[in-house]
Amino acid sequence: MFQLAWPIFHAVVAAGDTYAYDPAMTFAQARDLWTTPPARCFIALEAGAVVGTYCLKPNQAALGDHVANAGYMVAPEARGRGVASRMCAHSLDAARAAGFRAMQFNFVAASNEGAVRLWRRHGFEIVGRVPDAFRHRGRGLTDVFIMYRRL
Amino acid sequence: MFQLAWPIFHAVVAAGDTYAYDPAMTFAQARDLWTTPPARCFIALEAGAVVGTYCLKPNQAALGDHVANAGYMVAPEARGRGVASRMCAHSLDAARAAGFRAMQFNFVAASNEGAVRLWRRHGFEIVGRVPDAFRHRGRGLTDVFIMYRRL
Repeated sequence: MFQLAWPIFHAVVAAGDTYAYDPAMTFAQARDLWTTPPARCFIALEAGAVVGTYCLKPNQAALGDHVANAGYMVAPEARGRGVASRMCAHSLDAARAAGFRAMQFNFVAASNEGAVRLWRRHGFEIVGRVPDAFRHRGRGLTDVFIMYRRL
Repeated sequence: MFQLAWPIFHAVVAAGDTYAYDPAMTFAQARDLWTTPPARCFIALEAGAVVGTYCLKPNQAALGDHVANAGYMVAPEARGRGVASRMCAHSLDAARAAGFRAMQFNFVAASNEGAVRLWRRHGFEIVGRVPDAFRHRGRGLTDVFIMYRRL
């Protein structure tokens, strides 16, 4: 199934403006990262077209595995239509259904203001800020937020 | 070499009061976690006895790999003698030598007050706090600090 997500994954990572992953990451590396259990990969469809993907997994090992982590990617041509918002809502339900008690994002680029606003609307708060943790391809060293909400 | 670290690793993880790792983690799982490149495993010796171990690695993938992460473990019988402090100082030098620009700890139990004090003395600041992120074996749900310093 990861083949469906790969064009989006590749486009997002190659841009180097949101995720820390190697912009030149291969299909196999991306698939392993996004789909190896306990990670679960989801696909967002609109009229039969793949417009987004997200990954849901525990944020830490055993004694921290009640907190989920998720990462979302939207196809460049499908942006601005609420796809990320719908995936976030879906992931919160999926995380609750899987028994997670909270969700944490470890690496939200401070420059990604739209995402920060969106996660806030979905109930996340900024609980941490790491200076210069992201080498943004366009902006250079950029702060990173840690965001969190209970479920 | 990980055989030298394993008794300490096992004792620390089995206690379930500092790390999220499964208290029943096996030797092979621990070795892979602590030694698989880019992770590097270090051993602290005192008069020929192994008294501590630490792991140094990038905290994130490619575009975040200028920030190091480290985890330290001290043998139960060697506590209170400055072993963690000496390992921390050593890891800061090793991280600088490897070209890292900063170091980040993602999961410092708020209950581990001695460690928080020690990391502060070594120049780390609390840059985030995640509520109830750790199921501490004795205390139950416990907050976790994110700590950071530049190198």
